Amino acid sequence: MEMLNFTVGPVKSSDEIRKIGGNQVPYFRTPEFSDVMKENEQLMLKFMKAPMNARAVFLTGSGTAAMEAAVINTLTENDKALVVNGGSFGQRFVDLLGLHHIPYTEINPESGKGVQAYQLEPFKKQGYTAFLVNIHETSTGVLHDYRLIGDFCRENGLFLIIDAISSFLADELDMASCHADVILTGSQKALACPPGVSILALSERAVDRIKNIPTKCMYLDLKDALKNAERGQTPFTPAVGVLLQINARLRQIRRDGGVEKETERIHALAQYFREQIKKLPFEIVSESLSNAVTPLHPKTASAYDIFTILKDEYGIWVCPNGGAMKDSVFRVGHIGDLSFKDYDKLLNALKDMQRKGMI
Amino acid sequence: MEMLNFTVGPVKSSDEIRKIGGNQVPYFRTPEFSDVMKENEQLMLKFMKAPMNARAVFLTGSGTAAMEAAVINTLTENDKALVVNGGSFGQRFVDLLGLHHIPYTEINPESGKGVQAYQLEPFKKQGYTAFLVNIHETSTGVLHDYRLIGDFCRENGLFLIIDAISSFLADELDMASCHADVILTGSQKALACPPGVSILALSERAVDRIKNIPTKCMYLDLKDALKNAERGQTPFTPAVGVLLQINARLRQIRRDGGVEKETERIHALAQYFREQIKKLPFEIVSESLSNAVTPLHPKTASAYDIFTILKDEYGIWVCPNGGAMKDSVFRVGHIGDLSFKDYDKLLNALKDMQRKGMI
Repeated sequence: MEMLNFTVGPVKSSDEIRKIGGNQVPYFRTPEFSDVMKENEQLMLKFMKAPMNARAVFLTGSGTAAMEAAVINTLTENDKALVVNGGSFGQRFVDLLGLHHIPYTEINPESGKGVQAYQLEPFKKQGYTAFLVNIHETSTGVLHDYRLIGDFCRENGLFLIIDAISSFLADELDMASCHADVILTGSQKALACPPGVSILALSERAVDRIKNIPTKCMYLDLKDALKNAERGQTPFTPAVGVLLQINARLRQIRRDGGVEKETERIHALAQYFREQIKKLPFEIVSESLSNAVTPLHPKTASAYDIFTILKDEYGIWVCPNGGAMKDSVFRVGHIGDLSFKDYDKLLNALKDMQRKGMI
Repeated sequence: MEMLNFTVGPVKSSDEIRKIGGNQVPYFRTPEFSDVMKENEQLMLKFMKAPMNARAVFLTGSGTAAMEAAVINTLTENDKALVVNGGSFGQRFVDLLGLHHIPYTEINPESGKGVQAYQLEPFKKQGYTAFLVNIHETSTGVLHDYRLIGDFCRENGLFLIIDAISSFLADELDMASCHADVILTGSQKALACPPGVSILALSERAVDRIKNIPTKCMYLDLKDALKNAERGQTPFTPAVGVLLQINARLRQIRRDGGVEKETERIHALAQYFREQIKKLPFEIVSESLSNAVTPLHPKTASAYDIFTILKDEYGIWVCPNGGAMKDSVFRVGHIGDLSFKDYDKLLNALKDMQRKGMI
C-alpha cells in the first residue's frame, strides 16, 4: 500500500519528479549539468522575486545547513542580531547565533500569534544590525508578517535573514519588496522533491558581506559556492539527482502558471481541509496560519496516538510534534502533490476513528 | 541514449537501487525508518570490519562534509597531525587542518607512488598525535598501504583518520586490524547509490574524543549525530531516499557473498580493462593502483579532448582531471554496476578514435 503523506517533508512528489529519481544519476562536471544549475539559479531568483544582482546557491544538506551557512557567512561577532524565537526552528537560530558568538536578543511572539508591531518598537535605534526569522515557524504553524518585518528592517537598516523553508511557494513572499538579504528554503517542502538540497537566495548586500567575512566552515562556505556557481557548478559533489528534480519542478511551476498559481493551489487545499476539520474534535492552534500546514490540538485523544493509529491502521502519515507538544499537537500539511480527494480520505479516516471512539 | 558511466562518482546504480529512487520518499520520524538506519549502521560497521563498540553515522552531504566533520570533531589545536598530501584530496585535508587551526606536517609521496616506510621514519617520537590519509587519492589514482600506515600509527600511538571515499568496497580494508579510528566514505562511489550521503565509522577512541571536544559546527556535529543514531534517527532531515537505497545496497552486498566478493568483482573489471588498454596509446600513471580507478595519460592527444569526444560522440563518460592535469590525465572508473561488456564498448570506442586519428 502506498502511504498517503500529509507531513511537512519529505512530501509527495509528482509522477514526473518521481520518475527522474528512478533514472541513473549523470556525471556532473559537464557543460550540460552547468546549464541545468544556471537555470535553477535563475528560476529560484525569479520565483523568490529577488532584487537585481541577487544570486542563489544550492547546498547539499538539510535546511539547517542553509540556516548555519547564512549565520556564519553573513554575520560576525560585530553584529547585534534580533531573532524571533517562536518554536523549535526559532530556537535553532538562537542556538546557531550562540554557537558562533554573534550577540543577539530574542523576540518571543505570543503563543499562536505572529510577531506584532508593538514587539518590534523597543528595538528601534538600539544599534541592532541584523534580524533573523523563520517566517513560518513550522513547529507551531505560525506565519509571521514578512511585510511588517521587512519594513522594520528597512527603516532601521537591519540585514534581514528569512528562513522560508516551509513557506516558499506556499505563502506569498517577495524578496525585493521586503528588502530581505537572505531567503532560504529546502528541496523537500513545497518544492516537493526528495530531501538533500537546501537553497539560499542572496541579495547584493549579502554577497558583499560573504566576500568580506573569513571562512569558518569549508563545507558551508558560501564564497566558494558563489564562485563555483558562476560556471554552474558546486565546490563538492552535490546531490545531482535532486538538483535535476528541482530543475524539472521549477519548470513545471513555470509551465503551470508560475508561483502565484502554485500558492493558490496550496491555499485552496488548506482552506478545504480547515473548513472540513471544524466538524471534528480538533482545535486549530495558530491564529496566523501558513498555507503550508494546519496545526491541530485533538480535544479527545493524544496527538501522538492519532499519528500512530493513522500510520498503522489507515496508511496515512500526518506530522507529529516533538518535545512538550508531542501529545497535544500534530500537524496536517498541504504541500506536495496532494488533491482534494486525498483530504477526503484523511477526513474519512478521522471520522472512522471518531465512530470507533478513538477520538 | 543512456550514457555509459566510467566516472568515479556518481556511478551507475543497479536496477534495484534505481527503482527505489523512483518511489515516493517516506516520512522518516517513524520506528520503521529507525529500523532501517540501525541496520545501515550495523552493516556499514560489519563491512568495514570495525572493532568492538565502534559506531557509524550518516551525514547528508558530500565526502568533504565527512572529512571536515572528522577534522573538527576529533582533533583540536592541541593535536599535532601528520597528513599525506598526494593530490587534490590530500590538499583538502591540509586546507581543513589549516582552516581549523590544527598544527600539521605534510608528507608528500613521490609521484605515482604510495607512502613509503622511509617517509614515515623521521616522524617517530616527535610528539605527533594524529595521522590523516586519503587511502586512495582519487585525483591521481594512487592507493596507499593501509597496513603500513596502521602499523606506524599503532606503534606511535597516533589517532588515525582514513578517507576511504573511493576505496571502500573496491580495495581491501580492515578497520580493526589497522587500528583506524575514523574511516569515511560516500554514497556515490562503490556503494553505487546517488550522491548526497557520507558515512563515518568511528572507533571507541574516536567516540570518546567527539564527546570531549566542543561543537564547532551544528550541521557537522557528530555528538548530536551519535546521540540521534542511538534511536536510528538523525538530528536534521536527511536524504531519506538515498539512505533507503544504501540499505538495499548493503543488503545486496550481504546477499551476494559479502564485501570480499564485491571487492573481487571490482578487481576483475579493473584487471580486464588494464590488460586491454595496453594495446592503445595510453600510459597508466600510478604504480600503486586502487581497484576503483585507472588513471591514464594519453600519449597522443589531450585528455580533456578525449573526455569530450567520448561524451559527445560515443555516449560514454570517463572522468576528467582538473587543474594542472586537465590535458594530461583522465581516469576510468571500475566502481558501479559495470560489466565486462561495458568495458568492451569503451575499448571499441577508443579503438575507433584511434582509427580516425583522434588518438
